[in-house]
Amino acid sequence: MADQYAQFSEDNRPGEIPAIRWDEPPEGPVLVLLDQTRLPAEEVELVCTDASALVEAIRSLAVRGAPLLGIAGAYGVALAAVRGFDVDGAAASLAGARPTAVNLSYGVRRAQQAHLAVLRAGGDQEQAAGAALAAARALHREDAEASGRMAVHGLALLDELLPGGNHRVLTHCNTGALVSGGEGTAFAVALAAHRAGRLRRLWVDETRPLLQGARLTSYEAARAGMAYTLLTDNAAGSLFSAGEVDAVLVGADRIAADGSVANKVGSYPLAVLARYHHVPFIVVAPLTTVDPDTPNGASIEVEQRASHEVTEITAPLVPVAGGEAGGAIPLAPLGTQAYNPAFDVTPPELVTAIVTEEGVVSPVTVEALAELCDRSRQVTI
Amino acid sequence: MADQYAQFSEDNRPGEIPAIRWDEPPEGPVLVLLDQTRLPAEEVELVCTDASALVEAIRSLAVRGAPLLGIAGAYGVALAAVRGFDVDGAAASLAGARPTAVNLSYGVRRAQQAHLAVLRAGGDQEQAAGAALAAARALHREDAEASGRMAVHGLALLDELLPGGNHRVLTHCNTGALVSGGEGTAFAVALAAHRAGRLRRLWVDETRPLLQGARLTSYEAARAGMAYTLLTDNAAGSLFSAGEVDAVLVGADRIAADGSVANKVGSYPLAVLARYHHVPFIVVAPLTTVDPDTPNGASIEVEQRASHEVTEITAPLVPVAGGEAGGAIPLAPLGTQAYNPAFDVTPPELVTAIVTEEGVVSPVTVEALAELCDRSRQVTI
Repeated sequence: MADQYAQFSEDNRPGEIPAIRWDEPPEGPVLVLLDQTRLPAEEVELVCTDASALVEAIRSLAVRGAPLLGIAGAYGVALAAVRGFDVDGAAASLAGARPTAVNLSYGVRRAQQAHLAVLRAGGDQEQAAGAALAAARALHREDAEASGRMAVHGLALLDELLPGGNHRVLTHCNTGALVSGGEGTAFAVALAAHRAGRLRRLWVDETRPLLQGARLTSYEAARAGMAYTLLTDNAAGSLFSAGEVDAVLVGADRIAADGSVANKVGSYPLAVLARYHHVPFIVVAPLTTVDPDTPNGASIEVEQRASHEVTEITAPLVPVAGGEAGGAIPLAPLGTQAYNPAFDVTPPELVTAIVTEEGVVSPVTVEALAELCDRSRQVTI
Repeated sequence: MADQYAQFSEDNRPGEIPAIRWDEPPEGPVLVLLDQTRLPAEEVELVCTDASALVEAIRSLAVRGAPLLGIAGAYGVALAAVRGFDVDGAAASLAGARPTAVNLSYGVRRAQQAHLAVLRAGGDQEQAAGAALAAARALHREDAEASGRMAVHGLALLDELLPGGNHRVLTHCNTGALVSGGEGTAFAVALAAHRAGRLRRLWVDETRPLLQGARLTSYEAARAGMAYTLLTDNAAGSLFSAGEVDAVLVGADRIAADGSVANKVGSYPLAVLARYHHVPFIVVAPLTTVDPDTPNGASIEVEQRASHEVTEITAPLVPVAGGEAGGAIPLAPLGTQAYNPAFDVTPPELVTAIVTEEGVVSPVTVEALAELCDRSRQVTI
């Protein structure tokens, strides 16, 4: 049951980062994750043999990012089914592992429903498990395709808003191949601009407290050969003030029916700065991120995380006489409590556009968003 | 010449933190600094026997904060004079150690002019050195007094703007006893509110990259028994959005003649957020921070610091087999470049009020600021 660590295999081509993969070694099926908590220092795979190991990987952010959480949730249900564990129990614990990203519960539900449909139609457990796995694989494939289409729509939007190319894009958190079956959401748009020769600079917010920007976006940008510069989150104001930001591109963890966007904490201050400086604030997310059951921003549950993520930083462990050194290094006096919301909510009036795989919503209104979701439903059903 | 470390003596009462002190042990006069880079983990004193050691302490931020830099600069000139070194050379290197805080060059100039005045009047080197030291001591004492008066004016302003007390104040960086001959600037106002029973909460921005909020403001708030909560800089937006901030209090490193305020990077985004949420943004600084020779924000030189402050974090060294572990821990891939301005500039239209020891300027205009400076000059000359 317990997860194991394995060195990342050498046959992966540089620049190709499988954030998640289903594998079937002789010992039985497993879900293999690139452990994102250990990047960029180490590329280590985390092997999950059951849903509870995956729940722990989700909670510790070894696997993270809204689209990838959806894929992971679906595979987690398939893993329980294929290995003969309690599928509904696994689905419930996976869906509740983190509260904000709606993609997680969507992925879980999709695999669970595929499983149930086969059983209801008289199929056996093996057939039902096969259906759950097929649903997870379909979601994985669709996400990769959606990623490509978001990049096309997003780059077209950038070119329309900022004629002449030479874009200087500010991004927050990590939204690339590490969060997706494909090349990601916001990062995929910046990557498309880079490949088209129209990205002058990617400004990378470090994204405290867990530094997904410093650790993961820098890692992906460096691998892709992009011109990137890291900054502390609070230095973004100086860039706006100096006229050095042409657009902000971020992902989303949940988009309410009114277009309110929950995303990594720090997104909302960027939206306010962008508005103050007349710079477009663009959200890039697959339609699975839109939750019609969440009417508005106030209805979005924002995950509050532990103080120690802010008050300590984790250093690699090294052997010392009598044990190990490193681990949690205090950044504040012992006993300091921290306010540590994982996400914030940006109201629709501060969002210039939402880019999805089915097209762009701008201005962001309840009606425009509903229309796009309806169109997508007609296509996929 | 080289600085030495000494354990902080045990006879200092808890809560009393001498950030700087002049001492005259048998080996000769020294300037003793509390090494702020090692707080809160260790309380260690740094002993400077000449100006070059002090320049290094200023550059490494062992001593920091606009008012304290002024005091340190003045003592540094006195140290050179008393020990018979080149006073003008010491003054030049001290004044240029960091470019943004105008207080540093003010303190240096004041001691240097006192020294020169005695020589010009026919005094000998010893008398001139005595005058330089007297000037430094006077500045130290005046800063402590100014601190007390800023706290009175600032608390009166808070009470006027926010009737009913129960203030929830957000602050950035560190502006307490560690930056001052007294109890500081913005922090002194919050402390006065706390002592008057009118501070409900102090929200402490961690202040990346060097974490002066997490390390130093938390340390001072905890010692003073204040109700404080730490947050990442990018989580301030969520607090504003939730209506949890009644006022922002920050210090300043230089105030231009038009009221533009250079302060620790991250202050400007708070000013924009405060404006968007109709929350007062209050700057607390002694009049020595106002520089009439800097006409506006664009004329303020903003210090750009090294990438490694953002891309690495320093962990305490521990002995391991064959050496030591700890030190610089990478937070981003090797080779990552960072944009790392130490300060940003907030334009006067975003500043609700500037609180000085001579009174409050609000609204912030060239005329009102000039009038206050003139009044102060009439009082002190």
